Amino acid sequence: MTLKTISSRDNPLYKELKHLATSSQARRKAGRTLLDGVHLCEAYLQQVGMPPLCIVSETALLNSEVTVILQECGNSETQSIVLPDALFHALSQVEHGIDILFVIDTPEQMEPQRLVQSAVLLDKVQDPGNFGSIVRSAAAAGIKQVFCSPGTTFAWSPKVLRAGMGAHFLIEIFENVDLEALIKRADIPVIATSSYAKKRIYDLDLTQPVAWLFGHEGQGVAEHLLALSTHQATIPHLGAIESLNVAASSAVCFFEQVRQQTSK
Amino acid sequence: MTLKTISSRDNPLYKELKHLATSSQARRKAGRTLLDGVHLCEAYLQQVGMPPLCIVSETALLNSEVTVILQECGNSETQSIVLPDALFHALSQVEHGIDILFVIDTPEQMEPQRLVQSAVLLDKVQDPGNFGSIVRSAAAAGIKQVFCSPGTTFAWSPKVLRAGMGAHFLIEIFENVDLEALIKRADIPVIATSSYAKKRIYDLDLTQPVAWLFGHEGQGVAEHLLALSTHQATIPHLGAIESLNVAASSAVCFFEQVRQQTSK
Repeated sequence: MTLKTISSRDNPLYKELKHLATSSQARRKAGRTLLDGVHLCEAYLQQVGMPPLCIVSETALLNSEVTVILQECGNSETQSIVLPDALFHALSQVEHGIDILFVIDTPEQMEPQRLVQSAVLLDKVQDPGNFGSIVRSAAAAGIKQVFCSPGTTFAWSPKVLRAGMGAHFLIEIFENVDLEALIKRADIPVIATSSYAKKRIYDLDLTQPVAWLFGHEGQGVAEHLLALSTHQATIPHLGAIESLNVAASSAVCFFEQVRQQTSK
Repeated sequence: MTLKTISSRDNPLYKELKHLATSSQARRKAGRTLLDGVHLCEAYLQQVGMPPLCIVSETALLNSEVTVILQECGNSETQSIVLPDALFHALSQVEHGIDILFVIDTPEQMEPQRLVQSAVLLDKVQDPGNFGSIVRSAAAAGIKQVFCSPGTTFAWSPKVLRAGMGAHFLIEIFENVDLEALIKRADIPVIATSSYAKKRIYDLDLTQPVAWLFGHEGQGVAEHLLALSTHQATIPHLGAIESLNVAASSAVCFFEQVRQQTSK
C-alpha cells in the first residue's frame, strides 16, 4: 500500500480537490464529486467498486475502519493520499466524522425513452437534504429511477450524497430531464401529490408500477405538469397544518405503495 | 403604529437580539426565541397571538405582507423595531426571505403525568431539520404531544422552527423528559420502530391512540427504551438500503395511523 502525503496548500492536486469541495460548478464541469465519511465510502465500495482517489487525514490513519479501506484501495488502481488534518478539514463538511473522502466520477446514465417501471419525478426540489432523503426513501421502497427537471438541486453535491446515505449507488438518477415530454410518453400512471386534490393516495391502486411526481418546496408541482398527470392525489391530514415536507410526503407515498405491494 | 429605529450595533437591545440569534444557550436561558420569516410570524399570529417584539429591515417596510403584520402589531402591546438591512441580516438565518422576525417566549408546558393520547417520543434526535419535520408531520397527522429526552436537539431553535413551519404552535412539546418513567406509566401502547423487528407497522392496530418512539439518527432508540416498548415494529423495505431517515420514517408511521383511522 503506497500512500502519498501532500502537505502544501499550493500543491496542484490539493487545489483541484479544494475546488471540487467548494464549488458545485466545478463538480458539474469535472463530472466528479466527493464522498464524505466512512459510511458513504463503504457503500460505494460495496455497490460500485474502487474510486479513482481516496483521501484521509493524518489522524484517520489511526482508525481501523479507515485502515481497512486503505488496504482495499492499495490492492487496486486507486491513488491514496494523506493530508495534514487542517488541509483535510478544508475539504470536508462533516464536523465530527472520521476523516476519509473518495473522489468519484458521477455516473452518466443514458436516459430511458419511456417510463415503464416505478419512478420518482422531481420538479425543482431545492433543498439538498430533502433531495437526499427522497433518494434514500425511494431506494428503500425498491424504486430504481429518479428523474429531475432543470432547476432541481444538483444530485451529486456532498450534502445530497450525505442525506442519501448511499442510496445514490442503488438508483439511477437522470438530471435536466424534460419532465413534460417524459410524462406525455409514460406507459404507467403518473401521480402528482397536491393538497388540493380530492382523491386520497390510499384510494389509488399502487400494486402496479407508478411514477410519483413531487414539486418545489414552496410552490409544489408546476401547473402544466399537474395537468398532465394521470392522477392528482392527497395525503389526508387530520391537523390544522397546510402541508407536509416534500421528503416526508414522498416517504408516505412510497411506503403506501410498498404496503399495497406486500399485502395480498 | 409607532416604529422604533435602531441603527447602532452597540444598542443594548440589539446586542441582546444578536445574542438570542446566535446562541442556543442564550435562548434557553432567556426562555425566548426568534421566528424568522413571514410564514412563521403569520402562523404565530393566527395560532398564538401577539409577540412581545417584532423586528423588520428597512427594505421589508416596502413589503405588503410585512405592512399588514406591522399594522396588527401596532394595534397591540407589541414593540416594533426597524433595523438597517445589514443589522437585520446578522440576526436572520433565512437567505432569500422577507426580513421579518418575531421575538417570542417559548411556552412552558406542565408535563402530563400519563400518556393517554397519541404522542411522539424522541430519544436524542440530533438534527434540527429532522426534528422540525417530525413536529410538522405529527401536527398534520393530528398528534398533539411530543416528548423529548435530554440530549434531543433544542425544540425552539430557529432551524427547528423553520423546518416545523408553524407546527410548533399546534402541538405541545415537552423537553428533558424522563422517557423511561413516561413509558413505564403509559396507558397506551408504545411502538418503537426498529429495522430488526419482525412485526410490520401495517400489522399493528393503530385505530386507537399510540405513542411512537423514535431514536438518534445513527444509533436508533436506546436499548433500555426499546425493551420497555409495547411493540417493536419495522417499515418493510424492498430495496438494499439499511434504514430510512428518521423524519421520513416517522411520517410513514403517522400516516399509516391516519390511514387506519380514516378507513372504516
